[in-house]
Amino acid sequence: MIDLHLVGIGTGNPDHLTRAAIRALNGADLILLPRKGTEKADLADLRRQICDAVLERPVRVVEFDLPRRASDRPYLGAVAEWHDAIAQCWCAAVDAHMPQGGHVALMVWGDPSLYDSSLRIAERLGAAGLPLRTHVVPGITSLQVLTAAHAIPLNRLGAPVTITTGRRLRDGGWPDGVQTLAVMLDSGGAFEVLKPDGLHIWWGAYVGMAEEVLIAGALGDVAAEIVETRARLRAAHGWIMDIYLLQRFD
Amino acid sequence: MIDLHLVGIGTGNPDHLTRAAIRALNGADLILLPRKGTEKADLADLRRQICDAVLERPVRVVEFDLPRRASDRPYLGAVAEWHDAIAQCWCAAVDAHMPQGGHVALMVWGDPSLYDSSLRIAERLGAAGLPLRTHVVPGITSLQVLTAAHAIPLNRLGAPVTITTGRRLRDGGWPDGVQTLAVMLDSGGAFEVLKPDGLHIWWGAYVGMAEEVLIAGALGDVAAEIVETRARLRAAHGWIMDIYLLQRFD
Ligand SMILES: C[S@@+](CC[C@H](N)C(=O)[O-])C[C@H]1O[C@@H](n2cnc3c(N)ncnc32)[C@H](O)[C@@H]1O
Ligand SMILES: C[S@@+](CC[C@H](N)C(=O)[O-])C[C@H]1O[C@@H](n2cnc3c(N)ncnc32)[C@H](O)[C@@H]1O
Repeated sequence: MIDLHLVGIGTGNPDHLTRAAIRALNGADLILLPRKGTEKADLADLRRQICDAVLERPVRVVEFDLPRRASDRPYLGAVAEWHDAIAQCWCAAVDAHMPQGGHVALMVWGDPSLYDSSLRIAERLGAAGLPLRTHVVPGITSLQVLTAAHAIPLNRLGAPVTITTGRRLRDGGWPDGVQTLAVMLDSGGAFEVLKPDGLHIWWGAYVGMAEEVLIAGALGDVAAEIVETRARLRAAHGWIMDIYLLQRFD
Repeated sequence: MIDLHLVGIGTGNPDHLTRAAIRALNGADLILLPRKGTEKADLADLRRQICDAVLERPVRVVEFDLPRRASDRPYLGAVAEWHDAIAQCWCAAVDAHMPQGGHVALMVWGDPSLYDSSLRIAERLGAAGLPLRTHVVPGITSLQVLTAAHAIPLNRLGAPVTITTGRRLRDGGWPDGVQTLAVMLDSGGAFEVLKPDGLHIWWGAYVGMAEEVLIAGALGDVAAEIVETRARLRAAHGWIMDIYLLQRFD
């Protein structure tokens, strides 16, 4: 039997780790660390730093190369193949390093429930007949780190909130009936498709990390500054992750 | 100058606390603990237990009675008055116990950004002229504990998510264009207004706590069981908090 622990680690600040996450990492027989290629080497380093900071006993830590997603294929099909390939990597690593079963932990960026593929990959392992129990340890999401950094509530009083992706916003525009919209996974400035009147934005890049940059204001006033800042930061660091909250006031 | 730290503590399991939360509590000159009346005494006890579990130095902990919300008034007006009253309590406690200023911490259930009034109350203090800096330490939300307990993703692949309240669902029905809907603050079974065909529900009460109860299934199959279980648990414990995720499959 394999107990797979998907451990949310927050968004780059080791202080985001919960006591439950620290416990799960210390209780593992094996920790698998994905290597994502050079441009995101900072992020693999960060997982290694977290291990150094919180492991109180020697736990076997094994790195594996994360396969790359085909970018020349329709999105959903390419993602499905990519998840299959990652599932095979996990299997191979577990077979090689923990053949009798046991507890294997994976550190998941933010929270495993939010725009993350680990649960879908774990499902594939179960469906392939591996005797698997999946456990999830929640972690602080980038959305919470964004609202904390700006010291703002996510929702208006008793009102709903929609969380979406840059791709959806770009393709579909502002969703009907929505007042509060959080946007993740934006490849850059999807908010530029919006008429800015009455919209306010709270934006953050590298939230929770040493590189954190925040910008907030009326969308019409700060949109260009955000686009420009994002491009500059991306060039400087070689990669970027950003997230934002939009509010419609009318 | 007063530094107010709104510290998210997760939903009842001291292991939800992050290292940042533990640090903020230990760095405080004063921790304010709300007392909410007898039926939720468990919850005040829990905050006291958290202090016992994580404080590594003597920090002054002061309890104060939380005013009650008028229930005979229109919702938004009553809430605004209630927030004013709480802001006055915070002021009075800070004046009495930390007259020269310093760091005051409040433990906030879940995350301070999500359906919580602390940030709005803090804003009132600032607006009243108190020299105040507000800091937010994110905490694990009940929604994350729900999805972790069921080991499910919040969103479908690349798709949006809406978070709303029981009141909105009851009054407005299923929101247009939505596939994934998380519901909080439901006074009981708002999903009963929905036609259950094609809907799946993942429900949890007391998530993360010793009393945790989970039910999942096709809404048509489990709606009655949830309503009945909720009523029974509420009677047994004297209070209940529950949350659920709905998915529409068509
Ligand atoms: C694949 S998703 C993973 C989300 C993660 N599971 C979470 O809970 O935050 C990656 C997206 O999350 C957001 N994100 C993650 N970490 C971030 C950070 N430190 N700063 C800004 N945005 C971040 C960005 O929108 C990014 O495109
Ligand atoms: C005033 S809101 C506070 C939410 C909190 N700030 C959070 O981040 O989860 C209270 C609502 O949160 C949900 N909730 C909070 N704690 C919960 C728990 N332990 N189990 C189930 N639901 C919970 C319920 O929907 C409840 O009505």
